[in-house]
Amino acid sequence: MNGAESLVHTLLGCGVEVCFANPGTSEMHFVAALDRIPGMKCVLGLQENVVTGMADGYWRMMEKPAATLLHCGPGLANGLANLHNARRARSGIVNCVGDQATYHRIFDAPLTADTEGLARTVSQWVRTSTKAKDVGADAAAAVQAAMTSPGQVATMVLPSDTCWDEGGVVAAPLPVPAVPQADPHAIRNVARILREKKNVLILLGGKALREGAQAYAWRASQATGAKLMAEGSNGRTQRGQGRLPLERVPYPADVAINALKWVEHLVLVNAKAPVGFFAYPGKPSKHYPESAQVHVLTRYEHDAEAALRALCEELNAPAVPMPDVGVRPERARGAPSPEGLAQTVAALMPENAIIADESVSYGRGFFPQTVAAPKHDWLQITGGAIGCGLPLATGAAVGGGGRRVINLQADGSAMYTVQALWTQAREKLPVTTVILSNRKYQILLGEYQNVGANPGRTAMDMLDLGNPDIGWVKMAEGMGVEAAQASTLDQVGDLMAQSFSRPGPFLIELLV
Amino acid sequence: MNGAESLVHTLLGCGVEVCFANPGTSEMHFVAALDRIPGMKCVLGLQENVVTGMADGYWRMMEKPAATLLHCGPGLANGLANLHNARRARSGIVNCVGDQATYHRIFDAPLTADTEGLARTVSQWVRTSTKAKDVGADAAAAVQAAMTSPGQVATMVLPSDTCWDEGGVVAAPLPVPAVPQADPHAIRNVARILREKKNVLILLGGKALREGAQAYAWRASQATGAKLMAEGSNGRTQRGQGRLPLERVPYPADVAINALKWVEHLVLVNAKAPVGFFAYPGKPSKHYPESAQVHVLTRYEHDAEAALRALCEELNAPAVPMPDVGVRPERARGAPSPEGLAQTVAALMPENAIIADESVSYGRGFFPQTVAAPKHDWLQITGGAIGCGLPLATGAAVGGGGRRVINLQADGSAMYTVQALWTQAREKLPVTTVILSNRKYQILLGEYQNVGANPGRTAMDMLDLGNPDIGWVKMAEGMGVEAAQASTLDQVGDLMAQSFSRPGPFLIELLV
Repeated sequence: MNGAESLVHTLLGCGVEVCFANPGTSEMHFVAALDRIPGMKCVLGLQENVVTGMADGYWRMMEKPAATLLHCGPGLANGLANLHNARRARSGIVNCVGDQATYHRIFDAPLTADTEGLARTVSQWVRTSTKAKDVGADAAAAVQAAMTSPGQVATMVLPSDTCWDEGGVVAAPLPVPAVPQADPHAIRNVARILREKKNVLILLGGKALREGAQAYAWRASQATGAKLMAEGSNGRTQRGQGRLPLERVPYPADVAINALKWVEHLVLVNAKAPVGFFAYPGKPSKHYPESAQVHVLTRYEHDAEAALRALCEELNAPAVPMPDVGVRPERARGAPSPEGLAQTVAALMPENAIIADESVSYGRGFFPQTVAAPKHDWLQITGGAIGCGLPLATGAAVGGGGRRVINLQADGSAMYTVQALWTQAREKLPVTTVILSNRKYQILLGEYQNVGANPGRTAMDMLDLGNPDIGWVKMAEGMGVEAAQASTLDQVGDLMAQSFSRPGPFLIELLV
Repeated sequence: MNGAESLVHTLLGCGVEVCFANPGTSEMHFVAALDRIPGMKCVLGLQENVVTGMADGYWRMMEKPAATLLHCGPGLANGLANLHNARRARSGIVNCVGDQATYHRIFDAPLTADTEGLARTVSQWVRTSTKAKDVGADAAAAVQAAMTSPGQVATMVLPSDTCWDEGGVVAAPLPVPAVPQADPHAIRNVARILREKKNVLILLGGKALREGAQAYAWRASQATGAKLMAEGSNGRTQRGQGRLPLERVPYPADVAINALKWVEHLVLVNAKAPVGFFAYPGKPSKHYPESAQVHVLTRYEHDAEAALRALCEELNAPAVPMPDVGVRPERARGAPSPEGLAQTVAALMPENAIIADESVSYGRGFFPQTVAAPKHDWLQITGGAIGCGLPLATGAAVGGGGRRVINLQADGSAMYTVQALWTQAREKLPVTTVILSNRKYQILLGEYQNVGANPGRTAMDMLDLGNPDIGWVKMAEGMGVEAAQASTLDQVGDLMAQSFSRPGPFLIELLV
């Protein structure tokens, strides 16, 4: 057995069932092993940031890692931005990066790069295998690292001789460390704060945004008067009927600071204390009051639902029904608006839809209009590295078991990883992409005006996406995805409804 | 004056005239400064690997650095693969990477990343400015580094407060170190080898492939019987009438080893001794005989033309006319073949065309058929990180002063950075793209078969680009570039001729 075969057997034995791939020459033995050994579904992406973003989306839905197959340092480099987002989403991924043979590295052939150095910038775990006999054990350790709560990016660097040499040894799965439990002192302390103090905000992030944890958070809140909010960017939020209509910490600095100015006690549940996405001259980095006290109920790796349940017990908080989120809205009509689009999505989405949201500036108002939609999962861009939405939607569809994915997608960001459409077509994935075609980097125009000026010609050359306008219907059709343009909410609603009733991907360019 | 303004003034004062850009929030003060201070041409790319690849193409034609404007660590990450290629081409580039404000970094906001760590993987020079007053001086040092022979990737990391704070100081250009001259002992030694030894190969790379250096290399070769070759991948080779019909070291290991097996003395001129692009089981890493002696005439940073001139003087090599490269070929007709396409390109290309070649496997035979074309520059992918061709063509057109650029482009590689077409349309650049649409990763199919197997279904899922076929005409039109499909050499020739006679970009999908 060669190293590559030991790798495939070990990954399969550890429960890794999907490999998102863009291979190159140094990975041919791995490709050959995947071909010979049945069991791994291989999904090709035509650029590596598509590959890594798909693995992120897959984890978010499946909570088990996919493998990625990447080609040397530059192939990894192409996928780093979505690994950055995955790291911020705390997704587990096993990257398999082929590289120069151990003995060939000293010759500095053209594709030779600092692969480990690149990997370290986004990975919690990095290892370069040096012998075929180690590849299996290294793979088992990588899967263990990826699955360690809350989920980690693990990167194996695989010199090609470690794959083609004989002597591979299949490794058994390593035990995944149990999800750690919150410190009982922290639970008692938070219970005391909730009982004794006013103006308490419980900030939920990570797995505290799943249905089970939400119910306990709501109970604690109802028993004590503490307010609940979600972090600004979250990997996966369970929403809709039966879930909490949580507000998120707003993105714009002034709005966030204003929204949090009342807070005297901030309780963190798988969350961090809110800070600015960026700094701005004369504005504070922290968006919560300097005088507020911060209390950590659970860190990212802790079991949020168990901690919130224990908190309810400590508080003797009675069971309460979840809040009434109201009646599902009707479709909106007429000219596009963020609220109208959100309302239309809420009116039409199938039960258990997955929303992949990279709507950037246009989508800041999507949340209130969708609280009364059917149950759904809402996936956000977590690390601010744009180009996340299309791959995330694609990977979520691979891991979604047939659930419809609705990708609400800004146009500028969509262009970063537009190649994902091709994978959607090839895999016939149930993804409806709605391109919010405003033909500019709207968020940057806003930021530019914050700098205190109206953009002149040179600035507009860098902020405007018109001249020429991107023809999204042609782009999608060029990659095998059916598409149509809409300029009203009526049209986008009709096209959405139509796409939900048919298998496979569809793209709607909404002129906004 | 704020730091951003000092940056723009300093870059302009140092002769940097073009900024390839994809800005974000942390760069808005830089964008505002570019808007207020006239003189910098700003060219937007819709993904950062387009941005950095354009800067590479610009340097190769202009031999002066462009700036790039990139957004935080992930924005830099997206552009690393083409910076890797630029580093291998020894191109000078000044990257300006905006980042979190110095005091905001500790809060680990979502976009915070190891920007310096990412930069170091591809840059010969990296500096993070920490105060507005230093930005000008840091920029002058960056330009100096970029222009230091043979050309270097210099990366400035610019925390946003260093851009918006007042106190910026414009720095004067720093002296660029003179191009170092070859060691006189090396020249005498190589002269002795050429006079006394048989089976000598003079291997030319870098600027030894410019017309002036070629003439001296030819003279030395004619006087001594030494053979001349070019390295396998070169940043810019001057070719066509009046230039040498140089063969390159072949890419496939067996072919290269066979082509070099006669060599007893290897003389390197801005080149390195040939090694495999990759290692293969049982094949040597070095592609020249172990017994061959290696002699360095010039290192990468040395003045190759001066060294070859001095070599001719040392040899008393008489002036000789350049070799007759023959008659310009006629257009080929009928079914597409690599040779027929190359012949057609040679027959039709305008004088002083620029060929941006990322033809990968299909293009290995392009060189012999194009030696008798009019004078032209041939730019290759130098670092093996695919996705180089479209951006390189675009940047070369920006720096080419109206010269026609012909991008001979593999389809799989084209998909990596397809967004470059939009920039070609916006800037109305004279680029003719010929997509070699074979609908597979042909080079990998070959490599796979070297591994010893015929690909099964799983392997083909990762090597085949069909299912669905990419519609290149629609893709191009979606980005504002006129396009047409060709399935014969007659058609591709007609379309090429038509595109050469009109301004602006055009794309031809050639079904091969």
